[in-house]
Amino acid sequence: MAASAFLPELATQVLVPAAAVVGIAFAVLQWALVSKVKMAPDQRRADGGGAKSGGATDYLIEEEEGLNEHNVVVKCAEIQNAISEGATSFLFTEYKYVGLFMGIFAILIFLFLGSVEGFSTKSQPCHYSKDSTCKPALANAIFSTIAFVLGAVTSLVSGFLGMKIATYANARTTLEARKGVGKAFITAFRSGAVMGFLLAASGLFVLYIAINLFGIYYGDDWEGLFEAITGYGLGGSSMALFGRVGGGIYTKAADVGADLVGKVERNIPEDDPRNPAVIADNVGDNVGDIAGMGSDLFGSYAESSCAALVVASISSFGINHEFTPMMYPLLISSVGIIACLITTLFATDFFEIKAVDEIEPALKKQLIISTAVMTVGIALVSWLGLPYTFTIFNFGAQKTVHNWQLFLCVAVGLWAGLVIGFVTEYYTSNAYSPVQDVADSCRTGAATNVIFGLALGYKSVIIPIFAIAFSIFLSFSLAAMYGVAVAALGMLSTIATGLAIDAYGPISDNAGGIAEMAGMSHRIRERTDALDAAGNTTAAIGKGFAIGSAALVSLALFGAFVSRAEISTVDVLTPKVFIGLIVGAMLPYWFSAMTMKSVGSAALKMVEEVRRQFNTIPGLMEGTTRPDYATCVKISTDASIKEMIPPGALVMLTPLIVGILFGVETLSGVLAGALVSGVQIAISASNTGGAWDNAKKYIEAGASEHARTLGPKGSDPHKAAVIGDTIGDPLKGTSGPSLNILIKLMAVESLVFAPFFATHGGILFKWL
Amino acid sequence: MAASAFLPELATQVLVPAAAVVGIAFAVLQWALVSKVKMAPDQRRADGGGAKSGGATDYLIEEEEGLNEHNVVVKCAEIQNAISEGATSFLFTEYKYVGLFMGIFAILIFLFLGSVEGFSTKSQPCHYSKDSTCKPALANAIFSTIAFVLGAVTSLVSGFLGMKIATYANARTTLEARKGVGKAFITAFRSGAVMGFLLAASGLFVLYIAINLFGIYYGDDWEGLFEAITGYGLGGSSMALFGRVGGGIYTKAADVGADLVGKVERNIPEDDPRNPAVIADNVGDNVGDIAGMGSDLFGSYAESSCAALVVASISSFGINHEFTPMMYPLLISSVGIIACLITTLFATDFFEIKAVDEIEPALKKQLIISTAVMTVGIALVSWLGLPYTFTIFNFGAQKTVHNWQLFLCVAVGLWAGLVIGFVTEYYTSNAYSPVQDVADSCRTGAATNVIFGLALGYKSVIIPIFAIAFSIFLSFSLAAMYGVAVAALGMLSTIATGLAIDAYGPISDNAGGIAEMAGMSHRIRERTDALDAAGNTTAAIGKGFAIGSAALVSLALFGAFVSRAEISTVDVLTPKVFIGLIVGAMLPYWFSAMTMKSVGSAALKMVEEVRRQFNTIPGLMEGTTRPDYATCVKISTDASIKEMIPPGALVMLTPLIVGILFGVETLSGVLAGALVSGVQIAISASNTGGAWDNAKKYIEAGASEHARTLGPKGSDPHKAAVIGDTIGDPLKGTSGPSLNILIKLMAVESLVFAPFFATHGGILFKWL
Repeated sequence: MAASAFLPELATQVLVPAAAVVGIAFAVLQWALVSKVKMAPDQRRADGGGAKSGGATDYLIEEEEGLNEHNVVVKCAEIQNAISEGATSFLFTEYKYVGLFMGIFAILIFLFLGSVEGFSTKSQPCHYSKDSTCKPALANAIFSTIAFVLGAVTSLVSGFLGMKIATYANARTTLEARKGVGKAFITAFRSGAVMGFLLAASGLFVLYIAINLFGIYYGDDWEGLFEAITGYGLGGSSMALFGRVGGGIYTKAADVGADLVGKVERNIPEDDPRNPAVIADNVGDNVGDIAGMGSDLFGSYAESSCAALVVASISSFGINHEFTPMMYPLLISSVGIIACLITTLFATDFFEIKAVDEIEPALKKQLIISTAVMTVGIALVSWLGLPYTFTIFNFGAQKTVHNWQLFLCVAVGLWAGLVIGFVTEYYTSNAYSPVQDVADSCRTGAATNVIFGLALGYKSVIIPIFAIAFSIFLSFSLAAMYGVAVAALGMLSTIATGLAIDAYGPISDNAGGIAEMAGMSHRIRERTDALDAAGNTTAAIGKGFAIGSAALVSLALFGAFVSRAEISTVDVLTPKVFIGLIVGAMLPYWFSAMTMKSVGSAALKMVEEVRRQFNTIPGLMEGTTRPDYATCVKISTDASIKEMIPPGALVMLTPLIVGILFGVETLSGVLAGALVSGVQIAISASNTGGAWDNAKKYIEAGASEHARTLGPKGSDPHKAAVIGDTIGDPLKGTSGPSLNILIKLMAVESLVFAPFFATHGGILFKWL
Repeated sequence: MAASAFLPELATQVLVPAAAVVGIAFAVLQWALVSKVKMAPDQRRADGGGAKSGGATDYLIEEEEGLNEHNVVVKCAEIQNAISEGATSFLFTEYKYVGLFMGIFAILIFLFLGSVEGFSTKSQPCHYSKDSTCKPALANAIFSTIAFVLGAVTSLVSGFLGMKIATYANARTTLEARKGVGKAFITAFRSGAVMGFLLAASGLFVLYIAINLFGIYYGDDWEGLFEAITGYGLGGSSMALFGRVGGGIYTKAADVGADLVGKVERNIPEDDPRNPAVIADNVGDNVGDIAGMGSDLFGSYAESSCAALVVASISSFGINHEFTPMMYPLLISSVGIIACLITTLFATDFFEIKAVDEIEPALKKQLIISTAVMTVGIALVSWLGLPYTFTIFNFGAQKTVHNWQLFLCVAVGLWAGLVIGFVTEYYTSNAYSPVQDVADSCRTGAATNVIFGLALGYKSVIIPIFAIAFSIFLSFSLAAMYGVAVAALGMLSTIATGLAIDAYGPISDNAGGIAEMAGMSHRIRERTDALDAAGNTTAAIGKGFAIGSAALVSLALFGAFVSRAEISTVDVLTPKVFIGLIVGAMLPYWFSAMTMKSVGSAALKMVEEVRRQFNTIPGLMEGTTRPDYATCVKISTDASIKEMIPPGALVMLTPLIVGILFGVETLSGVLAGALVSGVQIAISASNTGGAWDNAKKYIEAGASEHARTLGPKGSDPHKAAVIGDTIGDPLKGTSGPSLNILIKLMAVESLVFAPFFATHGGILFKWL
């Protein structure tokens, strides 16, 4: 019945790694372009002159203003070094502790999965097609563990490389800002692209290699092969969880601490070098927003691929061993890399930014172009890579699907992502009325600012949820859980572009910090501030993508888990499921309580230290003595290492405890509850935080008549806005973006452990 | 098989109304005792001297301090009058608009339900037992509409009477505070008891009468009878929704507005008569916290009774027409009234409060005593009122249950309520570390205060959710949805005591306001403040009860709806249900966004008006001119009338739209999603708000070494605490407590409209 795909297996075997290699090559090229900006003073002049394109604003402000060129570059290089060293040292410390935890968890995976059939080495009848023979559970245990470690290491490397690139690019962006906003933008954006393409391509590449290597052992047993591959997603997401939580606590403790004393009490500007927490704050941007986010989106990508592959392996592709359609998820990602490559050229080569107000539209254009190009790409892959008709596994039954239906599934995910992006922009950019209303409410003080900000966050949930619900309904109806998984992949298919514009934000933020610390002129700071304000919005958009895709991914994983755990319905109207549902819906609150409190407590310590330094170090306020940056770095490091363990353990142990004690029905409830409740808090927390930040920037920039009535810096409304911004820090930087990992991770973990839970789970109810 | 109950039908027919009459009589007695405190100056001396019990502190402070006795009483009476008139006039305005809405909705009910069988007047085969004959759908339409109106009117009267009692008691509490804190406590508590008993008893009485009157027409058709009775719950809750939302916006707009200018900008005390918003603020306590809450808890009670009755009518009680077991829910409430009556005597007659620090323990004792006494009561009713074995309808099947199992269901609800009460107390009372930590975080400003407060609210969700989940699991496992419904009734069985201690709070708050406005001495204000601080905690406990019971009630209603809509499973893993689930989980956010924004906007207007008055009325700050109270009252009134409609419409129209367009499966998802998500936000919002309020009071009272390092009033930490308190106002006063109505109301509405949805719903999917 099922016709085969146009694309032969060999072509697929070439195309996927080729796309990955192209992506990596493109990243290296971008890196080479960024590295042309020299941090050694004697080299710079030649390069500056050697740059081809020269806009109207292409001159060196510093030189014009007669500042000492040599000193500025040296100072920037120094600060860059300090930030880079701080970030590297923190990540090594973090990885040491997380490595221990992950090692223990890897052993748990092996033991639990191995014990499913008592560590037997005999082949078994397959789980879904009982008349075939599959590899023993022990093989699944070994390969799942290997995949887990592989996923964790890839995630770790992704985050680390991202951080390295960002700390390489930040000072270069600052230096380029002297030549004009366009130059600075391109440097920051190119650096973001290095990260975006490197992550997207290496994630694809490692997955591709792993499938082929594992395949040598598994042979025809695709069911077992892709079940084991799921460990890759679990590893990636576990690492991401610690990255997000640890990095999030680090960055926001430093940020809140620096702001509370520096801006509120001492009335010195943001990133002022006199502030003892300033280095910790800038390090934080790199370990939290860059490394954490890199790990996070890599995890989403790995998981949605795994979810799709697991479902496909028990659908007609897997049963008939059709390689090309089986690799459809990887083909989508491959085309995504090419589509994003084309898109990037629009930002860096085809057009040039000349003024500050062109930045946000340029970034928005990236989203639109990548979505449009990718739509064509999906159509192509669906036409070439899929047979016209095939069947998809649907909770015990096989459902007939056409290739154009699968195209619709991927496309709806892609476009829903765009909708979420635009809604997020609307609610967090200070170009529109919601943020302006919040800014206006600062007129009556911090309390109304907070009330309006919370209301804005709640409200911003509505359209994204409808977009997600619509995508789920369409893809679910057309192609069951496979449809949902590829919808998630669709949303993530432009991940390279998404990451590029997302990473661009913290890089610009750092660039501004370096300009301030190096004592560069006010006009340069204005340029980096403009880059940064656009970055706040794109960061919120990136979080919107991460959350939206997380919702789709975890539903797909949830579906795969339910299939594997052999439950055919998850009926809310059974006590076991319902208590899971309500407790699951509570978990995001528990998790948020932990992370918010952690940031709060760490910030309190930071405030005390910063106050102590201002009070006891003579000459600090006058700028004649340097503050003790190291102590503040240590406070952030210690707090995040210590505080990331409890929330991490909550997320990673909950599925194990529930599965073992209460069984798969209750666990299903927990997953569904955590999913539907967590998505809402995650979106509202991110957007509330983003809105407060930009409401503050709106007042500071004073770009409109209305904004000027609220300002200037230091006015009462501005002080109220700073309070809102500070409250938003842990919401948008720690608890909000970690929640999407909570949702995905619990689902993928349940899927990996499903064979164990199905045989040995629910001991509490067995006893009763 | 099923043995009959000990209690004959006649005994039940006597006992239920008798308990209701006793409850009403007790309320009247308490009222008579309160009214002994005379508001006319010439009468007072005789009465004061005539009081029997005389503690150590039994003297008149005012007289001692040589203040003019006559003037004080006259002034109190004047202020009381102003508050009472303001509240009455607002409620009349509110009822006018709500009445219109309810009238339209009543017509909708009639039209929708009547159309189920095309307004046919012919009897039909019964829905559950097809071989019997039941009344036509038209009868159901008529009687449901009547029941709806009855419920709405009872709810309206309940709220109105509560307000009348509270505004009658507030000044009397102030006057009694001159004699000592014990006297004042008893006055406030007795007044609360008037409201508690009046509501509990009249709710029971009206329901009893309605069942008997409707029974004349329905005869043996109990299925139809109790289906129609469900309209009573819908009417009660619809009214409660508008009461809570409208009253909540009113009170918090006034409160926030008064605080922001009075306390933060002008540095004048709370309730200072110079503040133009002070009357609106005090009116607000009565229309929001008293009338709104009265309607709310009455609604919960009506709904849980209806849910239990509907399920019972299609269980063995209903099929075999066993009257006494059928009336088990009403018997539970009857015994509850007696148990609460005994409990009240412990607070008013058996012990006497002599010092400030005895207040909170006395109120806590009320909870414990009522729970203990009621446990015995439940055992008695379960033993006398139920046969040893019977069957309960369980989604198409009949499940065998024993009377002791039903005892467990009711008892687990009752005790879970106590657990929720204690946890709420722990997180919101300033006697424990959570609130003290929040207060401590004010040291570093408002931002950390808000971060810690939000974290506290999130954390406070954990144990209540486990308690609710445990109750649901036990009662669900033992007796399906009937078990859940009676567990809710168990939690609400001590409603008279719950309402008494809950209403006590706003009465004390008002008493303090009147003392301040009448210019009474600082020592009297201290006494009323102590009463008020305890009231803050009990208000949070009351909200905890309301939310916990709402969760149970709506699950039971949801179960009844699913049974009536003839869906046997609500499978999360179907697209229709899942999109309902995720959209349902979003609704509480949408609703909160609306209500928060409404309070914020109204507060902004209030702030501007109060500022205007301070700036333009000469002599206002000096106290030589009276402010224009009426304009502030008008702002609150206009805002709440205008702003209560959209959130009200959201809640009331969602089930209709979803049911008609998407059908019963999606609607089931929406109900489940709203339930599991709404409970969390409701609990966290109430507790965060309560904690901020008491953190502020903790600093103000300065009762410990630690508290004194943060104070005094006007210090920076205190200012930060005031900001937190202000943010908490809409959370704890408007959006939080309204959410439990959202949950219940959507469920009961779905149940009422279930016959229509089952036949004509889901047109969108039918078209596709």
